[in-house]
Amino acid sequence: MNQARSAWLAAWAFAAMNAVWLSGAGAAEGMWTLDNLPRAALKDQHGFEPDAAWLSHVRGAAVRVGGCSGSLVSAQGLVMTNHHCVTRCLAELSTPQRPVKAAGYLARGPQEELACAGLEVLQLQSERDVTADVQTATQGLQGEAFQKAEDAVRARLARECQQGQAATRRCEVTVLYRGGQYVLKQYERYSDVRLVWVPEDAVASFGGDPDNFNFPRWCLDVAMLRLWRDGKPVNTPVHLRVEPAGPQAGELLFIPGHPGQTQRSLTVAQLERLRVRLASQDIPALSESRGLLHQLAQRGEPTRTWALQSMSGTENGLKVSQGQLQALFSPALWDLKRREEQALKAHVAAKPELRARVGDPWADIERAQALRAELETEYNLIAEGRAFSAPQFQSARILVRGPVERAKPDGQRLREFSESSLSVMERRIKAASPMDLTFERERLEWSLTRMRSVLGPDHPVVKTVLGTKSPSQRAGELITESKLHDATERARLWDGGAAAVDASADPFIALVRTTEAHARGLRERFEAQVLAVERQAAQRLALAQFDRDGLNRYPDATGTLRLSFGTLKGWQEGQAAVGTHTTVAGLRARHTGAAPFAMPNSWTTAGLALPHELPFNFVTDHDIIGGNSGSPMINRQGRWVGLVFDGNRHSLGGSFFYDGALNRAVSVHPAVILQALQRVYGGQGLAQELMR
Amino acid sequence: MNQARSAWLAAWAFAAMNAVWLSGAGAAEGMWTLDNLPRAALKDQHGFEPDAAWLSHVRGAAVRVGGCSGSLVSAQGLVMTNHHCVTRCLAELSTPQRPVKAAGYLARGPQEELACAGLEVLQLQSERDVTADVQTATQGLQGEAFQKAEDAVRARLARECQQGQAATRRCEVTVLYRGGQYVLKQYERYSDVRLVWVPEDAVASFGGDPDNFNFPRWCLDVAMLRLWRDGKPVNTPVHLRVEPAGPQAGELLFIPGHPGQTQRSLTVAQLERLRVRLASQDIPALSESRGLLHQLAQRGEPTRTWALQSMSGTENGLKVSQGQLQALFSPALWDLKRREEQALKAHVAAKPELRARVGDPWADIERAQALRAELETEYNLIAEGRAFSAPQFQSARILVRGPVERAKPDGQRLREFSESSLSVMERRIKAASPMDLTFERERLEWSLTRMRSVLGPDHPVVKTVLGTKSPSQRAGELITESKLHDATERARLWDGGAAAVDASADPFIALVRTTEAHARGLRERFEAQVLAVERQAAQRLALAQFDRDGLNRYPDATGTLRLSFGTLKGWQEGQAAVGTHTTVAGLRARHTGAAPFAMPNSWTTAGLALPHELPFNFVTDHDIIGGNSGSPMINRQGRWVGLVFDGNRHSLGGSFFYDGALNRAVSVHPAVILQALQRVYGGQGLAQELMR
Repeated sequence: MNQARSAWLAAWAFAAMNAVWLSGAGAAEGMWTLDNLPRAALKDQHGFEPDAAWLSHVRGAAVRVGGCSGSLVSAQGLVMTNHHCVTRCLAELSTPQRPVKAAGYLARGPQEELACAGLEVLQLQSERDVTADVQTATQGLQGEAFQKAEDAVRARLARECQQGQAATRRCEVTVLYRGGQYVLKQYERYSDVRLVWVPEDAVASFGGDPDNFNFPRWCLDVAMLRLWRDGKPVNTPVHLRVEPAGPQAGELLFIPGHPGQTQRSLTVAQLERLRVRLASQDIPALSESRGLLHQLAQRGEPTRTWALQSMSGTENGLKVSQGQLQALFSPALWDLKRREEQALKAHVAAKPELRARVGDPWADIERAQALRAELETEYNLIAEGRAFSAPQFQSARILVRGPVERAKPDGQRLREFSESSLSVMERRIKAASPMDLTFERERLEWSLTRMRSVLGPDHPVVKTVLGTKSPSQRAGELITESKLHDATERARLWDGGAAAVDASADPFIALVRTTEAHARGLRERFEAQVLAVERQAAQRLALAQFDRDGLNRYPDATGTLRLSFGTLKGWQEGQAAVGTHTTVAGLRARHTGAAPFAMPNSWTTAGLALPHELPFNFVTDHDIIGGNSGSPMINRQGRWVGLVFDGNRHSLGGSFFYDGALNRAVSVHPAVILQALQRVYGGQGLAQELMR
Repeated sequence: MNQARSAWLAAWAFAAMNAVWLSGAGAAEGMWTLDNLPRAALKDQHGFEPDAAWLSHVRGAAVRVGGCSGSLVSAQGLVMTNHHCVTRCLAELSTPQRPVKAAGYLARGPQEELACAGLEVLQLQSERDVTADVQTATQGLQGEAFQKAEDAVRARLARECQQGQAATRRCEVTVLYRGGQYVLKQYERYSDVRLVWVPEDAVASFGGDPDNFNFPRWCLDVAMLRLWRDGKPVNTPVHLRVEPAGPQAGELLFIPGHPGQTQRSLTVAQLERLRVRLASQDIPALSESRGLLHQLAQRGEPTRTWALQSMSGTENGLKVSQGQLQALFSPALWDLKRREEQALKAHVAAKPELRARVGDPWADIERAQALRAELETEYNLIAEGRAFSAPQFQSARILVRGPVERAKPDGQRLREFSESSLSVMERRIKAASPMDLTFERERLEWSLTRMRSVLGPDHPVVKTVLGTKSPSQRAGELITESKLHDATERARLWDGGAAAVDASADPFIALVRTTEAHARGLRERFEAQVLAVERQAAQRLALAQFDRDGLNRYPDATGTLRLSFGTLKGWQEGQAAVGTHTTVAGLRARHTGAAPFAMPNSWTTAGLALPHELPFNFVTDHDIIGGNSGSPMINRQGRWVGLVFDGNRHSLGGSFFYDGALNRAVSVHPAVILQALQRVYGGQGLAQELMR
């Protein structure tokens, strides 16, 4: 990384190195950026000092796989991630003749590797602090003007970095410390990603929703992919080698990965608002969806498969939200957050010069929460489109907005239409994405019904959308009469631009047109009066925090590369001690024969050859969150000793704080991956590639 | 009413009359017991002094109809209540040839009146304060011993009152002020209740779930029943006559009714716990059920009808819970409750003699909440049986417990098996109650799945219940192999006692047997360590309140007769003023032709004869809550001027406090009932009976 920092950050960069640990920080707390590791702690507690070569090796081998993490694990472009990170690809590749998801898949040679159409792998090439650029562009601006200027400078920086090479390069400006730092990241982009191996769904997600976020656990949650380019596998000299013995007791272990999102630096007012939203909107909506999908999964194929596919995401989201809500009902959390907030307020109050620069960001944020409460429901339903739960609606909105936005200068567009994002959007809109129209009809009807429930039958958008029709009638006609499920039609409208879109009588296009003014208005208002206010206040909070703590602080997770560290560690669950490892014997004991506790046939036949004591899954005290799925766990030699796929249920509170006594990451042991490949799946060649 | 009071209440009975209004009490606040009306306020504000004759007339005409309210409205036993209070009866009476629920029904003469098998009407005959009896029996006891002694004395009082005349008499001990007062109530019991008239579902619940708890509103939510005994209609000389002009502006109006349950006297700790429960358990469960039923309602008949029937209760419950949660997220509520709690604490602290008797009930309740948090989920699922959502399970539990409990002395039984309750239970278990096995199978599978989700697959009861089966397999075999859907089989097992039950191999009976020890253990622990502690603490809180306020306070609602008063009043909703009345013109404007906004055919044909300006529904500022549905609204002449059927959405916060600016009751105007009967439904005879 280019170490040039903005001036106002640089002042604390060195002071931070020996600062004391922050209050509440556990031994393994932190999702650290690679340029700001807690070096003193690593050295003091573990005698480890990562050098430039070590960091460069880790940075080169850790990749982003869609919304998950992954790693390069051979010199031939082999990428390891989780089975649950590629289920959409598996569902799309599955046919009655080749049920990839249910039966698993092993490519016997490169020619049998199957392309995952929608999947993209990003590998970080370089990064640069651009805080100063953003500050210059936004200086003195507020609200909407600030938002637009920030969008414009980010779009420009990304476009300049990308240099028109969108097919193989992706550039993004990442916002760290909720606005305290801006970093321009340049990724190598791999869009020809092929499936090499997955085991059966039944063993990859053994225990299903009941065991999700629990431990002990027995999931072979692994998928092997390969990067291709120009018709052949990519050479990847930088990659991780396996340590088949797995992690050792007491050994310092690292997880390089891409944790998606945490809310640890939210103010008390923001957390209070988030609690209301989770309890009043998110959890009820997810619960209702779960009940709906439970029934839809009893329909015939292919509706059943799509319902089950959607169900796993819904149930996962529900557990996450419920875990977060539980944390937000814990008095301990509020004590901690109030104490932290008071301490920072006191720090600011005590320094007049700082106080002049920081002001009262807490009050600004609190005011923004009142507006958030007023707008958020409508914003989510109409501006984000949750009221219209059909891929055709999302396509229609992109198709209607595309010509309008592309006609504007880059910096003035809605940010998803900025020059650097256009190729991703174009690829997505033109990609063949199979869907089941029965499933889409049912889900759309439900989302329209819910919109009417939540906004009421007299809301202007509800009246416009439904007219004199019931949600069932309206969903039926939209799905039946639209052609937007067809990629050819979407491509025709994208390529045809304004003329083609204006001429289209597609009912989803018409629906977008009639709701567009309201949707855009909501978005503009929400971004200018809520998001921009929160962003600017957060920048001033960051200023106060840097002033007090220097850089001895990690930013909230942002889906970008971080390093967590920890060791093998069980925990105390009430009266019971939970151990670190499970073995194949435990899987056999938990097998009932009824899903989700049924081993696949391969495990009740060839799998019997695996020894009882073969390690299966294990837990460590790393600080991780959703998005870390698929991360490698590595030792100080840089070898991978595990594949992260989950956290325990306590880790769900990790959105807000890390509790070293309880939060655990759950990983697959390398031994079970290698042994299963060799003895159960006939994957000797792949195992050799991993061990080479 | 027998005016004898317990000694410790009597001291304040007269002092109360001129006491000041309590803080926070609005002009129309209060669900008053008839022996403790706010006479001073009624006289001062409205110049009205109800005399004994007025009260006796009201008491005689107001009846309980299942979980709803109702009133006698002719001398021939005619009872008026809401359509939505009798939907279960309507569903059971409906056949493809006679779709009572969808098409409405009018009996042309007594011989066409249809018996509502499960419905019971109770009419209060007398009541007596028995606080002293309960205090004597429970003196010095704590926890389980207290609970058992209280159960025993209540069972004895009810049994002695009932004098073996269970067929026509029902006696209950009602607990007022959460234990501050016990009242023995004797009701005349009518169990031959017949349907006389209902309009179509489409106009009774016009607007459906979207309009529920909203206003403006257009629901002809009325049902007319008749009490029969010994093969002929019952003579009811005490009854309400109609005032066809309806309520007048400014006129003092009364609602005698049976509000079900409020939580206004809960402590801050109890409200906090309730909020967690609503957000984490009740609302997610109701939401999930809603999604499930949404899909089940798309199956063929009769599953569709049962799903829709269940849906209206689920959606209603969900709106209530969400309204309560919204109130519990309002800072104003917490300010009010904390202030009230502090004030009462201060009052106790200032009087050493009182302090010695009251102690610190707040702390006891707070400790009980911690245990509630630990036990409540499991208690609800297993002890209350929500994990086994099938009527067959509830029947099986009664059948298994019946012989065990009936062998014990009355005072030692589970309270639902006390001598005074047995006949109700026997009638219920032997009643033919139609059900759809497909619907029950789906709902049972869902509730088993949810049990496993919530308790986890390793919970001992989950393991016992599911074994190696999936919820789907287990629900399938239970529903298919059980015979408990058949009333004959249930009667055989009830009458056969222990021998018959022990010999039964019915899978639901077996399921109850294997979970019985765990279920009873949970119930005992929850009742002794949570409910009894809360009850005893609440008694001490009541003592403190009586000491400060005398009886100038109404008890929380308990499903027993209360009187609310108020006047016609609209309200301010944000920027908009909401008026007091709707008219037929509004209904016609809201009609789209698509359910739930479709008038039935009768209204688009014969109904066109009704004048545009005919009043339909109206709002008043009475303090009501669920259970008040079906209450008459009467004027000071004792004539009925409206039929209460709902509250506005603000009234949902009425569980916790009354806000006179916003809370409104919604009623049907008598003019639309009479005119519709005469001009739309051919019910001239019935209209004449009402106006006689």
